[in-house]
Amino acid sequence: MKKMIGKLGVTSVILIAMSMSAQAKEKVYKLKMATTWGKAATPLIDTAHNLSKMAEEMSNGRLLIRVDSSNKHKAPLGVFDMVKGGQYDMGHTASYYWKGKDINTLPFTSMPFGLTAPEQYAWFYHGGGLELMQKVYSKHNLLSFPGGNTGVQMGGFFRKEIKTLEDLKGLKMRIPGFAGEVMAKLGIQVTNIAPGELYTALDRNTIDALEWVGPSMDINMGFHKIAPYYYTGWHEPASELQVIVNKRKFNKLPKDLQTILTTAIRVSAYDMYIHNYDMNATAWAKMKKEQPNIKVKTFSKEIMDAMKKANQELRNEMSAKSPLLKEVLDSQDAYMKKAREWTKMSDYLYLKDNL
Amino acid sequence: MKKMIGKLGVTSVILIAMSMSAQAKEKVYKLKMATTWGKAATPLIDTAHNLSKMAEEMSNGRLLIRVDSSNKHKAPLGVFDMVKGGQYDMGHTASYYWKGKDINTLPFTSMPFGLTAPEQYAWFYHGGGLELMQKVYSKHNLLSFPGGNTGVQMGGFFRKEIKTLEDLKGLKMRIPGFAGEVMAKLGIQVTNIAPGELYTALDRNTIDALEWVGPSMDINMGFHKIAPYYYTGWHEPASELQVIVNKRKFNKLPKDLQTILTTAIRVSAYDMYIHNYDMNATAWAKMKKEQPNIKVKTFSKEIMDAMKKANQELRNEMSAKSPLLKEVLDSQDAYMKKAREWTKMSDYLYLKDNL
Repeated sequence: MKKMIGKLGVTSVILIAMSMSAQAKEKVYKLKMATTWGKAATPLIDTAHNLSKMAEEMSNGRLLIRVDSSNKHKAPLGVFDMVKGGQYDMGHTASYYWKGKDINTLPFTSMPFGLTAPEQYAWFYHGGGLELMQKVYSKHNLLSFPGGNTGVQMGGFFRKEIKTLEDLKGLKMRIPGFAGEVMAKLGIQVTNIAPGELYTALDRNTIDALEWVGPSMDINMGFHKIAPYYYTGWHEPASELQVIVNKRKFNKLPKDLQTILTTAIRVSAYDMYIHNYDMNATAWAKMKKEQPNIKVKTFSKEIMDAMKKANQELRNEMSAKSPLLKEVLDSQDAYMKKAREWTKMSDYLYLKDNL
Repeated sequence: MKKMIGKLGVTSVILIAMSMSAQAKEKVYKLKMATTWGKAATPLIDTAHNLSKMAEEMSNGRLLIRVDSSNKHKAPLGVFDMVKGGQYDMGHTASYYWKGKDINTLPFTSMPFGLTAPEQYAWFYHGGGLELMQKVYSKHNLLSFPGGNTGVQMGGFFRKEIKTLEDLKGLKMRIPGFAGEVMAKLGIQVTNIAPGELYTALDRNTIDALEWVGPSMDINMGFHKIAPYYYTGWHEPASELQVIVNKRKFNKLPKDLQTILTTAIRVSAYDMYIHNYDMNATAWAKMKKEQPNIKVKTFSKEIMDAMKKANQELRNEMSAKSPLLKEVLDSQDAYMKKAREWTKMSDYLYLKDNL
């Protein structure tokens, strides 16, 4: 050893040894994540906080993810561009918000009359869904991962009972996105009103109906107190949120931190599905207590058939414009055809016998 | 620096610096996990391999888990004792196998007419279920975590159609565990036959019926080719496997590796639920093709009511002997009462409108 030291010089050897030690202490990677949600939007935003916490703990502080809610960055619908542009490294959002930028992003959240949550996760992880999502997002230099599921969303609150297609004609309803386009085809007057003004609009008959999420997030809005007909869901049977990551930033992470990050995303997504299941069950029990007159209704077969027809027409129009969109929708359809047969004989028949 | 070196001696300083470096490279922790399953038992054993792989990658090789299938350790029903005794650090198994050792372990897998998979995960993670499971296992110096769900298991293959309670009387059926006790109360002659001999026993009328798992694991057994009545499930609506960990061994892990381990367990458990969903859907499509005459049947209301009554009697007998078991069953019942209301208006009514 002394001979070796002689050649290098004592100080050099010590500095090399110390630098090895410092390197092993290892670099801290700091990422910034923007969410589409406000800071109080439980359980959506919890998913972002949970994955950040898990990443920090599993990496022993080497991977730190700062979560900025929309209260901070003020651009809930700017998340896609901010992550694509590198202002943020990651985003927690929902794919279908970006259909105006790229129509192919639409089907990765949930499609009307589409896959349920377990069916959709099976499609993502075993039916080619995740690969198709990466294919769509790679054009934008982004990675996209399943980021939490709401389960079945409710069809909305109506002040009056809806029995026939005629009852829908001219009805003023707040129902955004693709579901709104389906409803418009049935003669509904679809309006857009800011969330903070919805209760008043419904109370003052500015609108006759509205769609929000499900009991877990509906309860604090108070709609059930003024619109007692609560219709079951058809338009978003399993809304999956997405975590998008700037690909260049992701590639800069060491391999172990990449796995820590994708694992934290994956488990916090499943966790949100389960958390929201619990929140829905709890909120629904409370809603019924607060408003015993609330009535759960399903749309009639006549209305459902008309919705399905309108839905198919819109899908065909969009598919004609984008072969990649057609590829994704066809993949979902083929998977559902297979998986629904199993769902029928397992979950459905079990529930039917144990209501 | 030279002054400091003078005091300590050159070699000492170098050794200290090098030891700091070695420490930072950090200790490798090696754990051994025994599974109740054989090496080919997909998707059950995949869960063990997946969590081992994830732990290794996330820890950058600092946490290595060796998976020994029952082919290796030869004691599928010895896993509990081997982990409790410290011969193994961890086990991948199912809680209800240990009801003979501790009756309180029974309800954490699945109970007849009980919670569905999302309901049960919600109970574990938000309804107090996990805390109750730890309470039961802590007496054995073990930790226990949800370790993968099969979803709804099928009620079994029958050579003849079962229409009335009378048709069940004297029928020879292989159906182990608690479900077998329920069936025995209905006059079924419950027999135990080794898995490798089941096909021949069914083919030669040594037995008239048998319960195995669901399409994903039933298909390779070939039962559908000789017993065309495939009854829907009632007895294991959401069988959750468990990962058990020796508490002393767990406590020796550094905090970051503890979180890596529990996260890897948690996500691989959810993953198994989704993997088996996909496998069931695929296997069922294949079974129908191989055997077009296969008929999916549900038990009649008369039979279901008798099963529910027998089930309740058995639960009451066991609960009378163990206050802790009663506490767990009451917790599940209360949670199901709340959650099923939500399941009805969400998953059930959605599926009903989209069969």
